[in-house]
Amino acid sequence: MNYKIILHTLGLALIIESAGMLLPVICAICYGDMQDLLIYSLCALLCLAVGATLTIIKPKNKTMYSREGFVIAALTWIVISLFGAIPFWISGYIPSYIDALFETVSGFTTTGASILPDVGALSNAHLLWRSFTHWIGGMGVLVFIMAVIPHDNGSTMYVLRAESPGPSVGKLVPKLKSSAKILYLIYVGLTLIQVIFMLFGKASLFEALTLTFGTAGTGGFALTNASIADYSPYIQKVITVFMILFGIDFSLYYLILTRKISSFFKSEEVRVYILIILISALVISLNTNYLYPNFNTSLRHGFFQVASIITTTGYTTTDFDIWPALSKTILVILMFVGACAGSTGGGIKVSRILILFKSIRREIKLAAHPKATHKITMNAKSVDEGTVRSVCVYFGVFMALFALSVLIISFDNFDPTTNFTAVAATVNNVGPGLSLVGPTRNYAEFSNLSKIVLSLDMLIGRLEIFPILMLFSPRTWRK
Amino acid sequence: MNYKIILHTLGLALIIESAGMLLPVICAICYGDMQDLLIYSLCALLCLAVGATLTIIKPKNKTMYSREGFVIAALTWIVISLFGAIPFWISGYIPSYIDALFETVSGFTTTGASILPDVGALSNAHLLWRSFTHWIGGMGVLVFIMAVIPHDNGSTMYVLRAESPGPSVGKLVPKLKSSAKILYLIYVGLTLIQVIFMLFGKASLFEALTLTFGTAGTGGFALTNASIADYSPYIQKVITVFMILFGIDFSLYYLILTRKISSFFKSEEVRVYILIILISALVISLNTNYLYPNFNTSLRHGFFQVASIITTTGYTTTDFDIWPALSKTILVILMFVGACAGSTGGGIKVSRILILFKSIRREIKLAAHPKATHKITMNAKSVDEGTVRSVCVYFGVFMALFALSVLIISFDNFDPTTNFTAVAATVNNVGPGLSLVGPTRNYAEFSNLSKIVLSLDMLIGRLEIFPILMLFSPRTWRK
Repeated sequence: MNYKIILHTLGLALIIESAGMLLPVICAICYGDMQDLLIYSLCALLCLAVGATLTIIKPKNKTMYSREGFVIAALTWIVISLFGAIPFWISGYIPSYIDALFETVSGFTTTGASILPDVGALSNAHLLWRSFTHWIGGMGVLVFIMAVIPHDNGSTMYVLRAESPGPSVGKLVPKLKSSAKILYLIYVGLTLIQVIFMLFGKASLFEALTLTFGTAGTGGFALTNASIADYSPYIQKVITVFMILFGIDFSLYYLILTRKISSFFKSEEVRVYILIILISALVISLNTNYLYPNFNTSLRHGFFQVASIITTTGYTTTDFDIWPALSKTILVILMFVGACAGSTGGGIKVSRILILFKSIRREIKLAAHPKATHKITMNAKSVDEGTVRSVCVYFGVFMALFALSVLIISFDNFDPTTNFTAVAATVNNVGPGLSLVGPTRNYAEFSNLSKIVLSLDMLIGRLEIFPILMLFSPRTWRK
Repeated sequence: MNYKIILHTLGLALIIESAGMLLPVICAICYGDMQDLLIYSLCALLCLAVGATLTIIKPKNKTMYSREGFVIAALTWIVISLFGAIPFWISGYIPSYIDALFETVSGFTTTGASILPDVGALSNAHLLWRSFTHWIGGMGVLVFIMAVIPHDNGSTMYVLRAESPGPSVGKLVPKLKSSAKILYLIYVGLTLIQVIFMLFGKASLFEALTLTFGTAGTGGFALTNASIADYSPYIQKVITVFMILFGIDFSLYYLILTRKISSFFKSEEVRVYILIILISALVISLNTNYLYPNFNTSLRHGFFQVASIITTTGYTTTDFDIWPALSKTILVILMFVGACAGSTGGGIKVSRILILFKSIRREIKLAAHPKATHKITMNAKSVDEGTVRSVCVYFGVFMALFALSVLIISFDNFDPTTNFTAVAATVNNVGPGLSLVGPTRNYAEFSNLSKIVLSLDMLIGRLEIFPILMLFSPRTWRK
C-alpha cells in the first residue's frame, strides 16, 4: 500500500474543501453575520492547515493501483465529512457532533436526509454550506482534483473509477485530466443555466444558488421544512426538468457538445430512464388525482416526485406519505432503481438494472439450452463478462448490506416501514422515506448507533459499496 | 419441444394425485362423513380418469432436454394444484375457486399461507388433504414419479434438477431412480419417527399425522387458527427439532446411513444453518423475554419461531407480530435466508447465501488485484463458475420479481409492511408475515388479482424461479 500518495491526496481534498468554505464566508459577509464569518474562516483555515501539512508528504513512487484508488476514495469522503461537520457543530446549531456528521455525510453523498427538526432555523451561511456540499459531492471531489492538479501518469484512472458511479467507467477523451475537466465544465454549465432559470422565476440569488446546488448534486437539502412545496409551479417545473437532466450520464452531454446528437438518443440507459419516468409519473398522477384539485396539479406533483426520487434528489412538493399504497410502492421501487450511471444521481443505476435483466434473459436461455453461448450487449456493444459478473454480485452484496443495516437500526424499535425506508433512502442517497422518516419528518429520533450506520450506508451508496467495504477488509492493509 | 412426453408425465402426476386422495377417502370412512367420502372419491376418480387418458399418449421419442424438464416441472405443479383445489371448492367450504386454488398452491408449495378465516371449521378429511399436500410437495411429485416408475434413460435428470431446490443438484448414487428412491425412503422414515414422537406426547393419530405432514414438508398448515400454540411444550419441542431436521440437505442423511458421519459435519451449509438458528434464537429469546413469564418460555418460543421461519414452515406458538422490531427484523431476514438446499424447506437457501458471500469476498479481492484469479470453493471443492453466475443472477431476478409482486398487490391499498411481508412469506414459502398477514391473520382480504400473484409467487419460490419464468418466455415454445 502506497500510504504517502493516499495522505498526499487527502491533503489536496482538504485544501479544496477549505476553498469551498470561502463560499459561506462570502455569504456571511454579505449578510453581515460576524459569528458565521468567524466560524467558516476558522474552519477554512483549519482545513487549509491540515491539508497543506499532508501535501508536504511527497510520494516518491507515484504509482497507484486499484487498491489505492479504492482506499483514497473511501478515506477522502470520510475525511471531508469529518471536517465539513465542524461548522455546524461549533456554531451550536447542531449540538451533537454525530448529528452534525450525519448532516454533512448526507450533504456530500447528495442524500439530503436531515436530522434538523427545523431547517429554517439555520443561518444563511450554514444553509449555503449545507447545499454546497451537495454540489461538491455530486460530481466528486477526486474528479475535481484530477481536473485541476497536474498528474504525470495514467494510474489515477483507478481513483476516478472508485469515485464515479456506474458499472463501468470510461474516459471521454484519451487524456484523463481532460475528461475530468470536461465533466466539470458541463456540470458548471448546467448549474449556471438552472440558476438563470430560477432567477427568472423570481427566486432570490440565495434561493437560486442553494436550490440549484441541491438539484445539480441530486441532493435535496432545501431551505425550510416544506422543501419545495411553497415555491411557484414555475420553480417546481424548472427543478423537475433539471433533476431529470442531472440524472443523465454526463458523457452523453459531451456527445451533444461534439454534435453526435444521434448517439445521445441511442443510449439504451437514457431511453429506459425516460420511459420509467414517464410511465411512473402518469400512473402516480392518475392514482393520486383524488387528493388534488385538478389533474394538472396531480401531474405536476407526480412528475416532480418521480423525478426527485428516481434521480435520488429527495426534494418534495407534497407529503407523499399520505399517497395510496400503489404510488408509495412505485416511489420506493424508484429509490432502488436510481438514475443513470455517470450522472450525479444515486441508487442502483438504470444501466445495472438493464444488465441484470439481460443476464436474467441469458440465464433463461441457458437453462433451456445449457450448451449455447450468449453475449450480453449494451448500446450494440458487447459487455465485458467481468462487468456482468460484478453487476450481479452488486445486487447480492446490496441485499446483504441492506438486511444488515435494517437489522442494526431495528434496535431503536421503530416500525418496519420506517426501518426499511430509512435504509432505502440513505443507501440509495435519496433522503426522505416513509412513515417516521417521511417527507414531513426527519432522522433526529434515531439513536447514535443508527445514525452512524445510516451515515455509513450513505457513503456505501455514494461510492457504490466496494471502496467502503475494502476499508474493513484486512487484506487491503496487508503488505 | 417434446409435447408428448410432457403430457405423459402430467398424466402420471395426476394418477399419483388420485392415489394421494385415497388418504382423505379413508379418513372420511373412519369419521363416517359421507359427504367427504363422496367428494374425495369423485375427485380421485376424476384425477385418475384424466391422468390415465394422458398416459395413453406414448412419446415415441423419450429424449428430454433441459427445456422439457423445466416445462414439465412448472406444468405438473400447476396441474396438480388445479385438480387438488376441487374438493375444497365443490364441498362449499371454500366457495371461491381462486381461494381454493390459493389454499392448494399454498399446500403443495409447502407455504402454509391460508385464506381461511376459521381453519377449525374444515372437516377432518379436508384438514388431512390440506396437510397431505404439504407432504407431497415437500419432496416433490416428480421425484416420486422418478422413484417408482421405470425409466430407461438418464435424461430425466433435467426434471429432477428443475424440481429440486438448491443451486446445484447431484445424484446420490449413479442411478437416478435409486437416488430418488433413497430420498423418499429417508423422507418416509423421518416422517414415521416424528409421528411416533408426536403420539408419545398424547397427540391423537389424526393430529400426529397432519401436524407431521406439515412439519415434514416444512409447510405449516395446522388444525386451528392458533396453529401450535395450544399444544404441550413437549409437542412444541418435538416439532422444533423435526422442523430443523427437515430443513437439512437430505443427501447428508444418506451419508449418515452409509456411515460417513464425519462428512455430515463437514458440510459448510449445515454448520452455517445451525449457527444461524442458535444465534437468532438466543437473540430473540433475550429480546422478547419481557413478554413471557420466564426465560425458559421465551427460549421455547424463540427456538420454535426461528426454526419455523428459517425452514419456511410457518407454524406459530405465539403472535410474533407483537414482538419488538429487532426480533421481527430477524424473522423477516430468516424468511429470505431459508433452509438448506436439497431439503424440503424454501427461501433463498443457505448454500446460495454462502456462495454469494464468497463471490463478494472474491469481488473485493478482484477490486484490489484486478488481474488475480480466484476459485470459489464449497466443502473444500471448487464451485463451477456457471453455478456461481446463476446464483448471483438468482439474487437479481429474485429482487426484480419481488418488487413487481409488491407493486401489483399494492393495488389493494394495504400498508407497506403487509405488502412486503405478504410477498416475502409467499415467495419464500413461509406462510405467515407481519401486520395484516401476521400469525393471527390470513390472506382472505386480498383481491383475486393479488391472490393469483401470490399463488404464482409461491410456485416461483418452490420451483426456484426459472421453470415458471420459462413458461412465460416465447422462446420456450419455439420449435
